Amino acid sequence: MKKIINEPNDVVTQMLDGMVKAHPERLKRLENTTVLVKKELTPDKVGVVSGGGSGHEPAHAGYIGDGMLDAAVSGEVFTSPTPDQVLAAIKAVDQGKGVLLVIKNYTGDVMNFEMAAEIAEDEGIEVAQVVVNDDVAVEDSTHTTGRRGVAGTLFVHKAAGAAAAQGSSLNEVKNAAESVIQNIKSIGIALYPAEVPGSGNPGFEIGENEMELGIGIHGEPGMETTEVSSANDIAERLVDQVLPELNLKNGDEVTVMVNGLGATPLMELYILSNHIHDLIREKGAVISDTHVGNFMTALEMTGASLTVLKHNEEIKSLLKQPCNTLALNIQKEEA
Amino acid sequence: MKKIINEPNDVVTQMLDGMVKAHPERLKRLENTTVLVKKELTPDKVGVVSGGGSGHEPAHAGYIGDGMLDAAVSGEVFTSPTPDQVLAAIKAVDQGKGVLLVIKNYTGDVMNFEMAAEIAEDEGIEVAQVVVNDDVAVEDSTHTTGRRGVAGTLFVHKAAGAAAAQGSSLNEVKNAAESVIQNIKSIGIALYPAEVPGSGNPGFEIGENEMELGIGIHGEPGMETTEVSSANDIAERLVDQVLPELNLKNGDEVTVMVNGLGATPLMELYILSNHIHDLIREKGAVISDTHVGNFMTALEMTGASLTVLKHNEEIKSLLKQPCNTLALNIQKEEA
Repeated sequence: MKKIINEPNDVVTQMLDGMVKAHPERLKRLENTTVLVKKELTPDKVGVVSGGGSGHEPAHAGYIGDGMLDAAVSGEVFTSPTPDQVLAAIKAVDQGKGVLLVIKNYTGDVMNFEMAAEIAEDEGIEVAQVVVNDDVAVEDSTHTTGRRGVAGTLFVHKAAGAAAAQGSSLNEVKNAAESVIQNIKSIGIALYPAEVPGSGNPGFEIGENEMELGIGIHGEPGMETTEVSSANDIAERLVDQVLPELNLKNGDEVTVMVNGLGATPLMELYILSNHIHDLIREKGAVISDTHVGNFMTALEMTGASLTVLKHNEEIKSLLKQPCNTLALNIQKEEA
Repeated sequence: MKKIINEPNDVVTQMLDGMVKAHPERLKRLENTTVLVKKELTPDKVGVVSGGGSGHEPAHAGYIGDGMLDAAVSGEVFTSPTPDQVLAAIKAVDQGKGVLLVIKNYTGDVMNFEMAAEIAEDEGIEVAQVVVNDDVAVEDSTHTTGRRGVAGTLFVHKAAGAAAAQGSSLNEVKNAAESVIQNIKSIGIALYPAEVPGSGNPGFEIGENEMELGIGIHGEPGMETTEVSSANDIAERLVDQVLPELNLKNGDEVTVMVNGLGATPLMELYILSNHIHDLIREKGAVISDTHVGNFMTALEMTGASLTVLKHNEEIKSLLKQPCNTLALNIQKEEA
């Protein structure tokens, strides 16, 4: 597959350098690491750190900024970052109020983030962690015990970041993150695979008229391979998987995200979102916010995922707080 | 090519419906048109309207909002909107101070926007227009006399929108737009083509090891088809085409945009941007802002474009003004 890269081994470091050169007012790179940190940390607050394998951009460095993350750790493509990198991020953002780690549920990520947390605790830094497992497609898979963490993770960043910005304690910030995790569900579908740079092979095989329901963001197998159907049929399949998990009652408020996996035109995401809206409203839910775009990708995979977040009062209030990052911007409401 | 659509004939209308359902606080659709208008127009200012064929999302409806566009007109995929649609947009946003049309330089767009402007003038609405021709690749091409308008168009939206928001007259808003047009240059490169829904064929043919330099955003032929090279080599080719057009002097300030054409991973855009930064700085220019992402796409074309905007005092000031749209957000600086 043709790609705009230099040496495959250099993709992560050159991407990170590119991000810092492009956004020096927002980001800096910790020397000799793959950690990007917010240029100017807001003083006296809980630090919020996330990360994982590269290839999911704008996740996670695109969510560094006021009201979201303080640092993001990047592993190699589709590979967990090592504990020393995570530890460097923890140390960089700790200001004495502790640090929350937001981890997507993959065996390697959980292991390496936890190891870093233990070392940091030994060194006197208070660390808490949450594990995001919003993907309803499969229990246990190639890279995971339990359910995988996918696009819903960014709302965990949002809620934790908003709580931290309000001056909440580490425990309160963790509770805000957990509140989102308990109320967020996602599922994806893919039409074409992605190829890890230098691998020489696509991540999975799929027929010219097929799509894969329940795909993972590293190309892990999903629930079902079927013939490609219409956008409206795809919308129904996604909604049918996600909504029953949320036990929505009439009048419940939700936030919806229709996320592109990397190579899907925005036009198609909006066509998909169009019918998803109709279907969710038919169930009696109130959609208070919708995000459509590439928020958690899988390199150049073609496909999309649906994330639905059920609100409670706390979540609703945290989502409304302003944030200022490359990939998610919520401006202050005019007084 | 597999796509997430329903009937090919319905893609534009379902996309527009999807946008309005997703962002009802920002957008409304003029009944029986393909025109999206800002939900609440800011009173007593010049209206700014753009548009063109669909398939370039987030352009142009993604730039509707405070400090940018008041309305966007969508044609069918890669097809100019008709004069009656443009006229409807003009009428919807005029508040007695006149309306500026920002037109990308394609024969059909120029003709249809001009026709709409004439009718509006006959009906007593003051209309001015500017034609964006930032693509340095070719003079005259499949769809154009002169140079094509591509990704640089969004900075014309930004400058005109900022001037309008400051209460400038129609003539001043037009001059702000012209000032950007005279100082902005772009060029693109493609690795894989896009396919118009329902056409059954990709927009152009390209070998498995080839890339096309100077590609247009509808797949129009560029300057040269060559073997795919490294990201750094591509960066050099793009910079070598764009910079000589700007007559940059040592210390000149520029804004840089590295734009994805639809299916290119953000990782690759940052790798490209990384070397572009080095090359532009070597020439002695000062990069004051960089935008990396999918701003003006060509459906699922794989490739990227470089846009460089040379600042003068007016442009610099207009770029800094806050804006609040789906695809470009500049928050107010904290006091």
